[in-house]
Amino acid sequence: MSDNKVQIFDTTLRDGEQVPGCKLNTQQKLVIAKQLDYLGVDVIEAGFPVSSPGDFASVNEIAKIVKNATVCGLTRAVENDIKVAAEALKFAKKPRIHTGIGTSDSHIKYKFNSTQDQVIERGIAAVKFAKSFVEDVEFYAEDAGRTDNEFLARVCEAMIKAGATVLNIPDTTGYCLPEEYGAKIKYLKENVTGIDNVIISCHCHNDLGLATANSISGAINGARQIECTINGIGERAGNTSLEEVVMIMKQHPYLNLNTDINSRLLYETSQMVSDHMGMMVQPNKAIVGANAFAHSSGIHQDGVIKNRETYEIIDPAEVGVTESAIVLTARSGRAALAYRAKKVGYELTKLQLDDVYKEFLNFADHKKEVIDEDIHQIMKNTNVIAAVVA
Amino acid sequence: MSDNKVQIFDTTLRDGEQVPGCKLNTQQKLVIAKQLDYLGVDVIEAGFPVSSPGDFASVNEIAKIVKNATVCGLTRAVENDIKVAAEALKFAKKPRIHTGIGTSDSHIKYKFNSTQDQVIERGIAAVKFAKSFVEDVEFYAEDAGRTDNEFLARVCEAMIKAGATVLNIPDTTGYCLPEEYGAKIKYLKENVTGIDNVIISCHCHNDLGLATANSISGAINGARQIECTINGIGERAGNTSLEEVVMIMKQHPYLNLNTDINSRLLYETSQMVSDHMGMMVQPNKAIVGANAFAHSSGIHQDGVIKNRETYEIIDPAEVGVTESAIVLTARSGRAALAYRAKKVGYELTKLQLDDVYKEFLNFADHKKEVIDEDIHQIMKNTNVIAAVVA
Repeated sequence: MSDNKVQIFDTTLRDGEQVPGCKLNTQQKLVIAKQLDYLGVDVIEAGFPVSSPGDFASVNEIAKIVKNATVCGLTRAVENDIKVAAEALKFAKKPRIHTGIGTSDSHIKYKFNSTQDQVIERGIAAVKFAKSFVEDVEFYAEDAGRTDNEFLARVCEAMIKAGATVLNIPDTTGYCLPEEYGAKIKYLKENVTGIDNVIISCHCHNDLGLATANSISGAINGARQIECTINGIGERAGNTSLEEVVMIMKQHPYLNLNTDINSRLLYETSQMVSDHMGMMVQPNKAIVGANAFAHSSGIHQDGVIKNRETYEIIDPAEVGVTESAIVLTARSGRAALAYRAKKVGYELTKLQLDDVYKEFLNFADHKKEVIDEDIHQIMKNTNVIAAVVA
Repeated sequence: MSDNKVQIFDTTLRDGEQVPGCKLNTQQKLVIAKQLDYLGVDVIEAGFPVSSPGDFASVNEIAKIVKNATVCGLTRAVENDIKVAAEALKFAKKPRIHTGIGTSDSHIKYKFNSTQDQVIERGIAAVKFAKSFVEDVEFYAEDAGRTDNEFLARVCEAMIKAGATVLNIPDTTGYCLPEEYGAKIKYLKENVTGIDNVIISCHCHNDLGLATANSISGAINGARQIECTINGIGERAGNTSLEEVVMIMKQHPYLNLNTDINSRLLYETSQMVSDHMGMMVQPNKAIVGANAFAHSSGIHQDGVIKNRETYEIIDPAEVGVTESAIVLTARSGRAALAYRAKKVGYELTKLQLDDVYKEFLNFADHKKEVIDEDIHQIMKNTNVIAAVVA
């Protein structure tokens, strides 16, 4: 693995699937796991095996069919959770157990009614117990985003000594600002003995709309794994969007960070997850939303028609979208109308375009979107006998 | 205005409304404009008056009814656009004309087939012409995100001299990283003569999922206006979400940035815009999505029941959501089941809960969500004669 490779840890089937309305059956999970493997993710978090018999069965089946990715199961820092996860993962080519415990004052006090030292002890015991089943053990310091950096460093050091291979620093409540989250990762990089022998992982929630920015800030400061989901689904406002972090690293080569994701499969993967979960993606979702490459204002349409890069930084084909759409609305200009008219068969002179455009605006002021049929009607209304090009 | 007040410039009715499928009629725009005024936005960008007769009429009507906010109309750096905008705004208590031109190499070369000096000349002429109608003139340097900082500083200086009161630095293509965008604002703050007498504005697009982070980075580095939309709608992947930037500033008091937004109206405003546009908000949308305050995993539910702040950083009431939902799925734990069972009338002993929970998991493995009716069925199936509390 190169120093600049950022591992993509997909938790669509765990943090994503636990969401209201997103439940999948085992068959659906297998289809998605196959697609994630094909997409090139490094780790598939397949479920939380102890949580229910159905989830156990799913992790077990996914472990059997995944060819390239590591398959991971979530646990609490509880012996039975870990034993059950190990059992669920027994057929995986590359199994990983993901265990951990809350480390913020709020979690230690209200959730565990415990102390910092006791929490470290429980973490060590969990990592060691997981290590008795698998080589690859990831530890999460839940609510690390609100955990004091000095204590967090102590936790990390103890878990490395206990055998953890990956340290997950979750911003569980989605509270951090990018600078703050990046500084946290930097602090760990600089203050934890043995940190260079393990992978630091970002797991950011999107409660304030900052999950993507926080994850990238983490990677810039030394993290080499990002935990994310297709379409950014997940608990509450969701997780980091896989498609967003992947495309940011691809579009900003000077960051010198890369992934093994085949970005041309992003759109179809997004659609597949959305369909199976019955969880729609809003049209203005970055990268995979229906409007992500649609241009509707006259100013923008004119620019894109002259040169795609005026308004598009990503070639839609790079994420598997066949072409950027030019949508005609009341805000569209002459250039877009002429472009679309030509596509449906009318070559307009400049004078004709003036007449047609006036009629188009009357039309468009009463409709959300002007479709091809409307264009034929507009031509009729204006009596334009345009050269037919089709 | 305090030095730490960040003006909220809402462009739901302009950048938002120009989106495929989001068209509104004048009546709908008036309802939304009233709500925005009530919400406490500083500026309402009401439309692009020259673009169509319908849009002209809408801006004109909005200008008449808005009581507190500045009402703004968009134009290109074209005399007729500006004249028409001034006409549309003539009844506004506080009118603003928003004019500008592309400043990146890509825009200058491909869109205008022009030169840097000519673009500055056109900008100056537009600002001066707009100034002949209104006092408050905002200038946008389109594609500033990809404009060389040194040239951008020259542009800004020239526009201040010409009379601009606000300088909009749009990341038109959504390309910038937060650090980069913040550094751009800082560069202008430090290198443009007269910059302290005008307001720098952020207008960020969300193509890479970074609009919110970029806007906040801009404000941290000296910008004092953020252009945004309700639900983050807007061209392609949309604009900065108003609700996200407002809540970030509110949740991070040490940033020492504040707005005049009444956050308790955020949820109803989001619903209103979504309903009128027929543009749904995805459940995992930050702040205003249906799941933004819903907890479904057992671990999280247990924590929230013990103490809300374990997993929630924002009190839902602060954004106008009545209470955080505890949703029962196969990933829910005993604590959540007991909590909900109690709500529908069953007080369970610890032993009873064990039996009921087992049956609950069988149920939940086959359903996306366990509803109140199912709980009654589960009780029947397990023959639990629980104390009825209701």
